[in-house]
Amino acid sequence: MKTTKKILLPENEMPEAWYNIVADMPNKPLPPLHPGTKQPINPSELEAIFGKELVKQEISTERWIEIPDEVRDLYRIYRPTPLVRASGLEKALDTPAKIYFKNESVSPVGSHKLNSAIPQAYYNKIQGIKHLTTETGAGQWGCALSVACQHFGLDLKVYMVKVSYEQKPYRKSIMQTFGAQVIPSPSNTTEAGRKILAQDPNCSGSLGIAISEAVEAAIMQPDTRYTLGSVLNHVILHQTIIGLEAEKQMQMVGDYPDVVIGCFGGGSNFSGITFPFLRHKLTGGKDIKLIAAEPASCPKLTRGTFQYDFGDTVGMTPLLPMYTLGHDFQPADIHAGGLRYHGAGTLVSQLHKDGLVDAVAIKQLDTFAAGILFARSEGIIPAPESTHAIAAAIEEALKAKVEGKEKTILFNLSGHGLIDMTAYDKYNSGEMTNFEVTDDYIKETVGRLEKILK
Amino acid sequence: MKTTKKILLPENEMPEAWYNIVADMPNKPLPPLHPGTKQPINPSELEAIFGKELVKQEISTERWIEIPDEVRDLYRIYRPTPLVRASGLEKALDTPAKIYFKNESVSPVGSHKLNSAIPQAYYNKIQGIKHLTTETGAGQWGCALSVACQHFGLDLKVYMVKVSYEQKPYRKSIMQTFGAQVIPSPSNTTEAGRKILAQDPNCSGSLGIAISEAVEAAIMQPDTRYTLGSVLNHVILHQTIIGLEAEKQMQMVGDYPDVVIGCFGGGSNFSGITFPFLRHKLTGGKDIKLIAAEPASCPKLTRGTFQYDFGDTVGMTPLLPMYTLGHDFQPADIHAGGLRYHGAGTLVSQLHKDGLVDAVAIKQLDTFAAGILFARSEGIIPAPESTHAIAAAIEEALKAKVEGKEKTILFNLSGHGLIDMTAYDKYNSGEMTNFEVTDDYIKETVGRLEKILK
Repeated sequence: MKTTKKILLPENEMPEAWYNIVADMPNKPLPPLHPGTKQPINPSELEAIFGKELVKQEISTERWIEIPDEVRDLYRIYRPTPLVRASGLEKALDTPAKIYFKNESVSPVGSHKLNSAIPQAYYNKIQGIKHLTTETGAGQWGCALSVACQHFGLDLKVYMVKVSYEQKPYRKSIMQTFGAQVIPSPSNTTEAGRKILAQDPNCSGSLGIAISEAVEAAIMQPDTRYTLGSVLNHVILHQTIIGLEAEKQMQMVGDYPDVVIGCFGGGSNFSGITFPFLRHKLTGGKDIKLIAAEPASCPKLTRGTFQYDFGDTVGMTPLLPMYTLGHDFQPADIHAGGLRYHGAGTLVSQLHKDGLVDAVAIKQLDTFAAGILFARSEGIIPAPESTHAIAAAIEEALKAKVEGKEKTILFNLSGHGLIDMTAYDKYNSGEMTNFEVTDDYIKETVGRLEKILK
Repeated sequence: MKTTKKILLPENEMPEAWYNIVADMPNKPLPPLHPGTKQPINPSELEAIFGKELVKQEISTERWIEIPDEVRDLYRIYRPTPLVRASGLEKALDTPAKIYFKNESVSPVGSHKLNSAIPQAYYNKIQGIKHLTTETGAGQWGCALSVACQHFGLDLKVYMVKVSYEQKPYRKSIMQTFGAQVIPSPSNTTEAGRKILAQDPNCSGSLGIAISEAVEAAIMQPDTRYTLGSVLNHVILHQTIIGLEAEKQMQMVGDYPDVVIGCFGGGSNFSGITFPFLRHKLTGGKDIKLIAAEPASCPKLTRGTFQYDFGDTVGMTPLLPMYTLGHDFQPADIHAGGLRYHGAGTLVSQLHKDGLVDAVAIKQLDTFAAGILFARSEGIIPAPESTHAIAAAIEEALKAKVEGKEKTILFNLSGHGLIDMTAYDKYNSGEMTNFEVTDDYIKETVGRLEKILK
C-alpha cells in the first residue's frame, strides 16, 4: 500500500472547543453599527433577532469557546470528516507539491453548513425559542438548518429565493423532507414581500429580499429568532472545527501546510479551514499563506472597498465593516450560488486589510475546468463553489512545479456537486460563459453606498 | 461522550481478499445454460462477452480471491466505509434492539456499485480491452462504472433506459462528466435497438432492451466487453467487501449481529453485506438470520418460482437458475428503480431454496415512511432502494420491542437519496401509491417462461 489516502481522526479526538480568532488579531474588528443611528449597536438590540448565546459569541474575545456535548453528539453523524491526500490530482498535475483536502462533502446534506446549523439550532432551543427563520439561495444552508431543527424539535421557516425555488427543486425537497416550511421569496407572508410583489408581481427574488423577509418574520412572531449561514463572527467560530480537525490530521501524518485555501462567499468555509492555521502565525510566528478564492464576477476582496455596509440589499440590517462591492451590487448569475454575496465577513475583511489573508479572483470557466479535472482524478464531483478552491490549489501546485519546490497545499472541499449537475451540463455542452465586471459598475454601486453613509 | 457513533476501520485493515460463498454452500449452484442448446455453457463462450478474469471468478469455487493492489488503491477513495450505530433510529423506535448500518452512501457517486465497477474495469484493462459497454436503469451502476473507466483509461458506452435518460438527467450528467458516452435506449446504434424503433418509434425503453443493446455493442466492436452491475457471481463476490469490513467493525465494538438485512434487486448489495456473516453459519454453526427486503411490486423471492430463466427480456443471455417472475414480467414503475428486476441472482436463489436466506416483500408507501423516519432520526436521506432494508430493520426492531428482547440488527445503507428527491416529493405530497401484483399475472408470465423452456 502507498501513503494513506484518507487520514481519519477518531471520534474521541474531535475538538472540544471552537477557536475564536478575535483573541489573537493584531487589530480588533470594528463594531457593527445601528442602521439608523450609525452608532455602535447594543448587543441587547441584536438579541431581538438572534439567539442570546449566539450574540454573546458574536462579540466574544475569548480564544476558545467550548462545544456543548449535544452539539458534538450531532456532529458525530459526519464528523470528524476525512482529510484526504489528493494523490490522483497530484499525479494529473505532475507536481512536486503535496495536496491535501478536507472533505466536508461527506456531511449528510453535502456541505460544511451543518457545522454552524447544529449549534445555532441548539442554542436557540435551550433558550426556549420555538421557531427559527432563515433565507437560502441555492439551498445549502437551508438544507443544513432543516436537519438541525428537525433534530432539536424546532419549527423552521425558510425563505428561498424564488428563482432557485423553481429551478433547484431538489434542495427544496430535502428541506421539506426534514419538515421545514419552504416559502418562495418574495412572498405575501411579510410586509417586505408584499411591498415588492405590489411593485413587481413577477419578481424572481434575491438573497437581499429573502433576508428582509426572514428577519421580519422572526421579529413579528413570538418565540422566534433569525439565523444566518455565513458572514457573522459566530458562524465563522463554529466553522473553525474544520481547520482544528485538519490540524490534528496533518499532525497524524507529520505534515503541515504552507498554503491553505478556501472558496469565498461570505467567509464561513474559508475562515473555518484557515483560521486555526493562521493562529500559529499570529501567536507563534509560523509562516503560512492563506488564499481566499472568490468568483471573478463577485470580486469583493480583490476589487471591493473596505467600508461599512449593510448585510442585505434593502438596508435593514446592522452596518458591518467589510470589503464590499456595495449592498445593491447585482452579481452575475454564476452557478456557484453560494459565492454570490456582495460583502466579506468582518473578520476576514480586517485580516485582509492587515495583509494576513490573500485573495484571488477566478473566472467561471476556469473553476469548472478545475472541477472536472478534480472529479476525474479524485472521483468526487465538487460543488461549483468548491471548484474555486480547487482552481486556486491547482495554480499553487503548478507554481511549485515551475519553481521545482516541494510545497504542502491544503484546501477545503466545502461540498459535493451531485445536486448541481445542470451546471456541469452547461459546461460540458460548451454553453457556459465567463462574466466580466466593469470598474464603472463597481464605482457606481460603491458610490451609492458612500452617498448613503455620508 | 456516548457510545461510538461511527465505527471506522483504518485503511490498512481493509480486507485483502473477497469471499466466495460457493466454497461453503451445502448445495452448489446449478450451471448457466446456453440459450440456444440449453446445455451447460462453456466458459470460453462467456469470454466473448465478459473479461477473462471475471469469467474465471464467475465459476470459481475458491473460498478467498485476492483483491489486486490497484483495486484496493482505488477503493481507498471511499473505503473502508463507516459502520454506524443508528442511535437516533433506536431512540425514535424506543426499542431494546441495537441497530447498526453500513454506510455505503459515502461512495463518491452515492452507492455501493463502485465496489464491483472498479474491479470489472481493472480486469478488463489488464487484459488489453479498450472499450466497455453496459446498461443502466436509474443510473447508479452507470455512474459507478464511469468513475472506474475514467480512472483506468477505458472508453465506456452506457445504454440508459430512455425514460430514465429523460426523467433523471442528473445521473446522465454525472456519467458524462466522467467521460462516458450515454445513449438513450432503444437507439439506432444497434440491430436490436433499430428493430424495436421500427416497430415503435416512441418506445421509452426497458432494462431488458438496454441489456440487449449493450451486449450486441460489445460483441460487434473489437477489444470490447460487456459488464453487468448485479446478479452474476463475480459481481456478488466483489460486493462481499461490505460484509467483510462490517464484520471487523462489529468486532471492534465487541458485537455481532443476530439479523443482517439488505434490500434486494438482483442481489449485489444484499449478498455483499450478508454472505460474510452467513459463512460462519455454514462453517461454524453460528446462528444468524438473513433478510432480503424486496419490493411488493416485484416479489421474485417471496412469490416467484425457482426456474432457469434469461437475464434479459428478449432472451439473448445465458439461462440462469433463479427465483424469477418470468423474464417478460413488467414491474410497476416504483421509485426504487434498482429493484425492478425480474429475477434473483443464482447464489441467493440457491441459498433461499435451501432455507438459508429469508425474504420479505414491502409496499412502496411503507418503504418511504421508513425512509423519512430514518432521515429524520439519522440525518441521512436514503436511496429509495435502501428504504426497503430500513423498513425491514424497523420491523425487526419493533418485534424485539414486543418480545422485550435485546437483539443486534445490521442493515446495509446501499446509497443516499439526494438525487432521488422527486420520489420524496411524491410521497410528501401524498401522490404516491402502492402497486399490487396479482397471482394471475405472475402465473401468466411464469407460464410463458415454462412454455419456452419445454
